[in-house]
Formats: sequence, C-alpha cells, structure tokens
Amino acid sequence: MNVPNPKITTGALPASRKIYVAGEIHKDIRVPMREISVHPTAGEPPLPVYDSSGPYTDPDVLTDIRQGLAPLRRDWIVARGDVEEYEGREVKPEDNGFVQGDRLTPEFPVRPKPLRAKDGVAVTQLAYARAGIVTPEMEYIAIRENQLREAVKEERDGHDWGANIPDYVTPEFVRDEVAAGRAIIPANINHPELEPMIIGRNFLVKINANMGTSAVSSSMEEEVDKLVWSIRWGADTVMDLSTGRNIHNTREWIVRNSPVPIGTVPIYQALEKVNGIAEDLTWEVFRDTLIEQAEQGVDYFTIHAGVRLHMVPMTAKRVTGIVSRGGSIMAKWCLHHHKESFLYDHFDEICDICRKYDVSFSLGDGLRPGSIADANDEAQFAELETLGELTKIAWAKDCQVMIEGPGHVAMHKIKENMDKQLECCHEAPFYTLGPLTTDIAPGYDHITSGIGAAMIGWFGCAMLCYVTPKEHLGLPDRDDVKTGVITYKIAAHAADLAKGLPGAQRRDDALSRARFEFRWEDQFNLALDPETARDFHDQTLPKEAHKVAHFCSMCGPKFCSMRISHDIRAEAQKEGMEAMAAKFREGGELYVPAPEASDAKAEPAE
Amino acid sequence: MNVPNPKITTGALPASRKIYVAGEIHKDIRVPMREISVHPTAGEPPLPVYDSSGPYTDPDVLTDIRQGLAPLRRDWIVARGDVEEYEGREVKPEDNGFVQGDRLTPEFPVRPKPLRAKDGVAVTQLAYARAGIVTPEMEYIAIRENQLREAVKEERDGHDWGANIPDYVTPEFVRDEVAAGRAIIPANINHPELEPMIIGRNFLVKINANMGTSAVSSSMEEEVDKLVWSIRWGADTVMDLSTGRNIHNTREWIVRNSPVPIGTVPIYQALEKVNGIAEDLTWEVFRDTLIEQAEQGVDYFTIHAGVRLHMVPMTAKRVTGIVSRGGSIMAKWCLHHHKESFLYDHFDEICDICRKYDVSFSLGDGLRPGSIADANDEAQFAELETLGELTKIAWAKDCQVMIEGPGHVAMHKIKENMDKQLECCHEAPFYTLGPLTTDIAPGYDHITSGIGAAMIGWFGCAMLCYVTPKEHLGLPDRDDVKTGVITYKIAAHAADLAKGLPGAQRRDDALSRARFEFRWEDQFNLALDPETARDFHDQTLPKEAHKVAHFCSMCGPKFCSMRISHDIRAEAQKEGMEAMAAKFREGGELYVPAPEASDAKAEPAE
Repeated sequence: MNVPNPKITTGALPASRKIYVAGEIHKDIRVPMREISVHPTAGEPPLPVYDSSGPYTDPDVLTDIRQGLAPLRRDWIVARGDVEEYEGREVKPEDNGFVQGDRLTPEFPVRPKPLRAKDGVAVTQLAYARAGIVTPEMEYIAIRENQLREAVKEERDGHDWGANIPDYVTPEFVRDEVAAGRAIIPANINHPELEPMIIGRNFLVKINANMGTSAVSSSMEEEVDKLVWSIRWGADTVMDLSTGRNIHNTREWIVRNSPVPIGTVPIYQALEKVNGIAEDLTWEVFRDTLIEQAEQGVDYFTIHAGVRLHMVPMTAKRVTGIVSRGGSIMAKWCLHHHKESFLYDHFDEICDICRKYDVSFSLGDGLRPGSIADANDEAQFAELETLGELTKIAWAKDCQVMIEGPGHVAMHKIKENMDKQLECCHEAPFYTLGPLTTDIAPGYDHITSGIGAAMIGWFGCAMLCYVTPKEHLGLPDRDDVKTGVITYKIAAHAADLAKGLPGAQRRDDALSRARFEFRWEDQFNLALDPETARDFHDQTLPKEAHKVAHFCSMCGPKFCSMRISHDIRAEAQKEGMEAMAAKFREGGELYVPAPEASDAKAEPAE
Repeated sequence: MNVPNPKITTGALPASRKIYVAGEIHKDIRVPMREISVHPTAGEPPLPVYDSSGPYTDPDVLTDIRQGLAPLRRDWIVARGDVEEYEGREVKPEDNGFVQGDRLTPEFPVRPKPLRAKDGVAVTQLAYARAGIVTPEMEYIAIRENQLREAVKEERDGHDWGANIPDYVTPEFVRDEVAAGRAIIPANINHPELEPMIIGRNFLVKINANMGTSAVSSSMEEEVDKLVWSIRWGADTVMDLSTGRNIHNTREWIVRNSPVPIGTVPIYQALEKVNGIAEDLTWEVFRDTLIEQAEQGVDYFTIHAGVRLHMVPMTAKRVTGIVSRGGSIMAKWCLHHHKESFLYDHFDEICDICRKYDVSFSLGDGLRPGSIADANDEAQFAELETLGELTKIAWAKDCQVMIEGPGHVAMHKIKENMDKQLECCHEAPFYTLGPLTTDIAPGYDHITSGIGAAMIGWFGCAMLCYVTPKEHLGLPDRDDVKTGVITYKIAAHAADLAKGLPGAQRRDDALSRARFEFRWEDQFNLALDPETARDFHDQTLPKEAHKVAHFCSMCGPKFCSMRISHDIRAEAQKEGMEAMAAKFREGGELYVPAPEASDAKAEPAE
C-alpha cells in the first residue's frame, strides 16, 4: 500500500539550539526550550525562549510523519493506574463522509488502541489537582513557563489588572491554578505525543492557529504541513476545523504528529454525518462523534451549549445575525424543532465523556458579534451567563473549562468583555478570536484583530485565536498561516510585557542591545521571524559587509543617530557621567537648571 | 531641456466617484470627497468618505507632474491682503549637496515667486482664528470633517477620555479649536496647492507617511510616485525626510505636486550643508535653511529645540541611547561645544520666520525612547516639559504647534504619555510615531506599532506617524508604503470608533451589511484596500459567479452561518419577532426563563 508522506519544514531556526531541562519531582521529564546564541562581542549568554515547535526543530530527532511522534506521556498516563485500554469504536463510513477509493484519505498507518478511564473515575488534570497531586504535566509546565529565569525579586514593571502572577512558577502553583479552574491543561489521555502546556491568566499568554480542510479546498498533506509550519512560528495550540469529507482520517494524521493540543468543533463533523442538514442532527449522532474524536486524542472540544432557544430571537435585529458556524447550526436546530438545544439538555452526559479522556471544554460563543455594531449586545451577554452555569456543571464533573469570546469589538468595549467573562464564568480562562477593532479592512484583519487581541490579552485573556489576512475572504495558505501566527505572537508578547510578566522583557532588551551595538545578525536571530528581518535588511543593503556596518540604510553612514549616541556615551564615560551631569546642573550662565531657564525663557511669551 | 515626468498612479478607486461640496460662507471653495456606491439591491445611498488623494483620483482633472497642481488657495491667501511677493532666496549649490551635471535632479520647470507676510504681520491660521476670522481653510475643513453627515443627536457610543468632540463640525468650531491651540492647520502660504486639513484631538485622527531620498538609495521620480501613492491610500500628511544630495530640487517637485501638507526636518539638510559634521552646524546655516524651505512651501518643520545640554547625560545609561536623528545631531553639537542648543537659544527667531509663512511647528522629541526599556524615562519627560515651554513661546508669536511623541512604549505606559503631553504642552496636538509595543518583531513593526498607535489615538493623539514593515531594517518601497498607510488608517479609524466620533461607524456598518447580504463586490469596494480584498477572495473562489454566491470559501455552501442567520431572520419575521420572543419566554417546560433554568441546572453542580 502506498502510504503518503507529507512534506514538512524541519530543522533549527537560525542561531538556535534545542535544549531539554529535566524535572526534579519527575526526573524523567525533558522540557524543550530554544536557546538563541548571540555574537561573542556581546558578552551575553544565549537567550532561552519558549518553544512550541516540537521535535521538528531538533536536528537530533528523526521525525517520520507516517510513524507519528514519540508518545512521551504514555508512561505517565499508564503509571497513574486509572486508565484501561479497550477496542474502541469502529471507524464508520460516515466518519469520512462516505468517501471511497482514491478520494479517501488513507488511514494513518499505525492505530493504537484507545485508553479510557476506569469506571467512574475522572482522569482529568483538574481531578488530580483537586486531589493535591502534582502530575508530570504540571511540573513540565512550571519549568516551561519559567524559561530558565530566576525568580524576579525587584519591583515589577507592568499593570496586571488584578491577575495573580507569581515571581516564579512552581509545580504547586500550576496545580493550584488548575484546581481553582483558573487554568487548564488540555491533554487527552489518547494524545500521548503532546508536550504539556497551560492556558491561564497567570501564565504566558498563548495563541491558537486554526486550520482544516473544507468542502472547497485543501488536503491532508497540506494540513499536516500547516500544523508543523504553524508551531514552528509559535502556535501553542491548533484547531482542526475541517469540514467536508475525510475528516476522520485527516484528523488522525494531525493528532499523531502534533506536539501541541488539538482542538475541534465536533458539531462540524456531526453535521457532515447528517449530510449538512442541521435539522437532522440528533444527540445520538453528536454523542457518537464526541467518542470518536475523544478516542483519537482531541484535547479540547468547542461546544456551543450556550446557544439556547429563547436567545435566538435576540439576534434577529442584529446587523450580522449569528456568525458562529456552530452557533448558527444550533440556532437553526432549536428553531426548527422548537426545542431547547440538545447540547444544553445533555451537557451532563457530555461532561461524562470528557472526564473519561480528559478532553477540555472550550465553551463556544455561538452568539458572538460579527460586526462592530453587534458587540456587547443582549444576545452575546445572555449566552455568556449560560456559559457561566455550564462551567459550574463541568467543574462539578472534574472537567476542565475555558470560555470562548468575540469577535468584533471596538476598543472601548473590549475591557467590558474581559470583566464580564471573569465575573460570569468564575475566572475560567478566556479564549478570544481577536477581537477585530473595526470592520473596514478585509485583507488586513490580522491587524484589525491583532490590536484587540493585544489589549484583551493585557486585560487577562489567556489565549488568543489568530486571525489571518484571509479572514472573511478565503482559506489561509502557508504564508497567511505564518503571518497570522507572527501577528498573534506579537499581540501575546505585548500583553505579557504590559502585564509585567517576570522575564518577559528579556528578549526585547537583548534585541535592543543588539540593535544599539549594530549586531545585525543578532537582531535577525532574536526576532520572531529571522528570515523576514534578514530579507528586508538585504533588500536595501545586501552585502555581507553591511551586516557589520555601523549604520543602516535609513540614515546612511553620515547620519546614524545610534552611532552618535555611542560617541555621547563614550564622552560621558570619559568624563564620568555623573560628574558631567553635575557640572551641567551646577550652573554658570550656560548651565541654568531647566526650571529657572524655562521661567526666564517663558516670560516674554506671557 | 529634457524635463523628467515621473510615472504615478491615477484614476478613481473601484465604485468610487469624486464629488465636491461648496461652502456657504466662502462660496468658491470646493471640498473633495469620495463617494462609494453600493449594489442597487442594497437600497442604500452611496457612502461619502474622507478623501486625501487629491486631484489624482478625479478622472476629470488632467494632472501633469511637470506643471504641478492648481494653486487653489492662491486667491484666498492674496485676498487677505497681508502678504507680498518678493524675489526670494537664490538657490545655492549647497542646497543640493554641491552635485552637478547629470547627477543633479533637474529643477522644477515652473518657479513662482515666493510670498511672505508684510512687515511684522503674522499670516498664520492661529493669528486669524484669534482675530475671530473664519478663513476659507477653516470652512473647508469643517465640511471635510463632517463627510456629509447630519449632526448626531442620539447618545454616542464611545469613550473619549475627556475630549470635546462636537455633534457637528462648524467653521466656528474649527476656528475656536485653532485659536485655543488644540488644533493646527498646516498650510504654508507658499503651498497654495494644498487641500486644507486639520490636526487636533477633537477631529478625525490623522496619519502621516514618511518618505525621502537617502544617501544609499532612491530618486526624485520614486519619491513623487510614493507621495501620490501614499495619499491614494489615505496619508493625510507626508514628511520628506530626504538626506544626501538633491534635497532642494527633490522637495520642489514634491511640494508642487502635493495636495497634502508636507513636513520636513530642516536640520537634515542643514547637516548636509556642513558635510554631515554635526559640530560644524551654526545658527546661520540653519536659519538660511528654514527660509529656503519656507519659501518652497513646507507646511511644518520638525525642530528638536527641546534637546538641551543638561539632558544629554540622562541618556547615557539607556539601552538604546538617542534614536532620533535630529536629537542625536543636536546632542552631539551641544556636547562638542559644551553649549546650549542653538535651536533653543534662537527659538524666538525661528518663530519669527514661521509666522511669516505660516509654517507650523512639530516640536521634535529628540530624546524619545528607542526601546521598551527606555520608555517614559527621565530624559524623555524632561524634554517634554521643555516642549511645553516652547509651545508657549510659539503661541505668543501666533505660531501653530504640535508635539512629537514616542517611539517604543509597552501598552501599560502609553496612556501616561498622552496624559503628560496634554498637561505639559497645554493641550497642543500630539503626533506620535507608533508607539511600538514590543521590540522583538523587526519586519513586522507596522503591526507592533499599529497596536500602540490605535491605543494612543483613542486616548487623544491627533496624528499617527506610520511605521512600515521595513522599520529598523531598510528603506520602504512602494508596497511597504501602502502597507504602512493601510495599517495606520486601521489604527486611526479604530481610534475614531472608540472615541465615539459621530459618523465614524457608518463605513463599518455599510461593509458589515454588505457582508451579511453576500454583496461581495460591495465588501471589496467599501474596504480600505479593495484590490487586496478582491485578490484574496479570488485566490480561493476565482469565478465571477462566486461574487454573487451566498456562501464563502471558509464554510462552503452547506455550512454558511450567515445564510442560516437569514433563515432565522426570515422565520422570526414571519412569526413576528417580538411575538416569537414572547412565546419563548412564556415558559412551558421547554421554555423555562434563563435564570430559573440556570438554578435548576446548576444545582447538581453545587
């Protein structure tokens, strides 16, 4: 049989080396980080940075897409003694949209038996946290979040809006945040290839990249490539929003090769199973789909259980009605049957499935605004309150929960979204799409939304769902995925800085020092996107010689302000800066202290 | 003689028509606007939008770069009877860097005699405003800012941070804002081709695009093309930051063909005149350069008079020292001569020149931070206070003033910049570069800065200086200029929305309605960049048929949430939405009101 072998991009980023840090509680864990080295003249150690790219950027690891990644969590999971292997659900023709022959995406070559919790047990990180257990996942995350920094002692530069950010992340802190429901660790027991990460307001702001096949385009090979490509640039989780055919087999290839959590919107596949007719959806079809995906290892489910029958009319007067696909599907179902949503009515049973596999909830905002005009309206906030109720139900079942948010929101209404979410949803992590701060720039919605994403991240949003330049217009290609990821890494990092997250500014400072010292190579290598930075520089000054030039193309050799600053610093140091400053302040006609001078100067103006 | 004829992009934007609105006080003024028409099925009138593109987008006007634009203000200026024509300063070899023969950019073919104020008179818009005069420029601006909207009566949706935004902009309001120094109208009497615009906190947020030749690249032809290109996409003013040779002749071509205000940093040319040696600068050389540029029609000067000797040592401990070119040049001069800055010492005389031609001040922030680490430090705020003193001196001479601001500032420190500027500079308009909210993304600094620009624009910044993707790396080409302009139009518009500027949301609503009704062509045409929007759509769904398709490539035909919303709306309207809503609320088991339902549902969770 001819097994496909998708092409992917591997190898280290420039001047970067993969390192692994061992645990103390759990000696066998190896937490990956990326170390960026700088020029010897800098006299600085390499800079460790958070690394979501997985083994693909480690030249010492041979990855084979047809084999999938190593199941590094398998032993941890089995060691807990609360799971059992079982036959699992048979793959059915409808799982792949009844497609056959050549048009069927080949099954993933390896098919491990799925695991599930033993009867009645919850195998969620929340259950362990509540039991006071520090899992390997939790210690892994603590090490990962600290990025080898020391505990910060000095006063913080930032404004955290009431978050509870620690000087140093301990495994116990991770456990306590998870136990309180303020953070989640999406980690399905059937996704052992996962490198654990956390989503919570008191940790680094994370970003999600969406991908997936659709009725009108793209293949499994493309999607696997996009997965590897998106994490290479920094995506912390990936949502597979595939529609159309081959959903099951495509997802298997993605999960087996993903070191980051995979999220899905199960209602999409359920709808395919009933030929796209929303009215024909049933609880049974949906339930079967949840089990199918849970067995494959999906780490979080977007469930639009907050869209209730009585809310639907609230959307009728909107400018853009219901823009969430899941939300509109459920609204249509409710309306057609004149019944309460089966997701809402069966939410308890949904929780029973999720706790068996540790699938986290991403409670969907089916009524999020699709335009500036609809932001923060009755429908949106009515649903948010329901999501708050559902959060308590899920927590009572030891299920992990995050809450999805908008969407399209003008800047002055963003904070209200964050505040209301914290209040209604009892501090469960918030996960927003943008928000877009204006509707007038299709083709640039990574930017209209990057503005809103940075702001809501600062205010306390835990994860930002990226938006690509193709939003509203088409399906993102490879370049769009990269642009979306980099834009959202910028938003997330700007938020970390503004929150005063300890250590966040290290990279900015390292890059700025490189800039000031004309270490061009270091500037490129420390950048989020070294390739683009180098390429842009070379477009104006291609010669290698210019990589060491003490000027740049903006000013040219004569004009360089940075070079002049060096002269100033040199002179200041020669004289002794303090002495120099003192002399200036002493006075003598030329050296009148500023205030006096101003009065003198200001008088004629009065 | 062979007169060059730079290639430029002309013609209307898609579905757009240039209209002109006449004045009431001044019957002869014709205020240009762009009207975007939508598909008849929308049943909506065309949308008028602010238009900075000049005659180049009016197919009825034949523009010839070698002739320059029509001097529409000439009569207004002369009619005031306070100016005189004179021979003007002879162009000197050093004005073009002593370059000769083929390497000399040809002189602009037409050379009008310059105008200046009659002895002792101030011919500034500020002087007129203080005298209670409503100039044609002021009425022009009032009409332009309103974009044909009615006065807004309903309550505003926005938060304006204490601005004083009127329901409707009257010529008298424009006059009073200028008289109070809260707004400026950059309009040199020697730039009669100018279409008047205003920069102030209580008006639409404006954006500036930088361009200019440099020692390492680009020509006059390229710069003229960039000028026309940048205003086509929405630049409200353009700064010519040319360095190297041919500065004088290049600038003449730019000013004669610019319908928007042109700003410069005169110290750049002065430095060229002393062969790039900062220490050799003298007041006399600088003074002569101011007159040279004022006679050419430069509308605003960036003057770094706030960089004083005693402040220089404050920068020695910075991560990136002094990054402003003008600031570093002056710092070096002060340090070398151990003297107070000649710009500061001669500020009175500089004002005397500016009031003669109505050149506005853009008081430069020579000590702005060049990295996140240096933001809001002692040096930056010491200079800001001096800029406040200088503002009073300029106002006392009837000169118009705006204040330049940073730079690199993390989000949590942005508001402090705006607040301190309003306080120190007595509400003179603020004009900031970005600010960049992180240093780690060279190649994407239009985005790192677009975030900060949108925020400070919301907080009250009057004009945003664009940053292109090439910032820190190279010289912007045509595509970079467009990307920078569109990004900043997004930031400025997001700010207008958040401030609750009356009418600002009209374009968002029109585009969102088009989106909801699948009027693809209207979506493209109403976008800031119709070409890119259309191109992105066609990459996935090229066929013309898809332009009327009631679905898009993201969901495909089966899945379209918007289409489902239409069904919902249809059903709601069939039943009568209110009745429907009421029925849902009435109850019956399935229709328990949300609160009760939640209690019921929540209990088991407790």
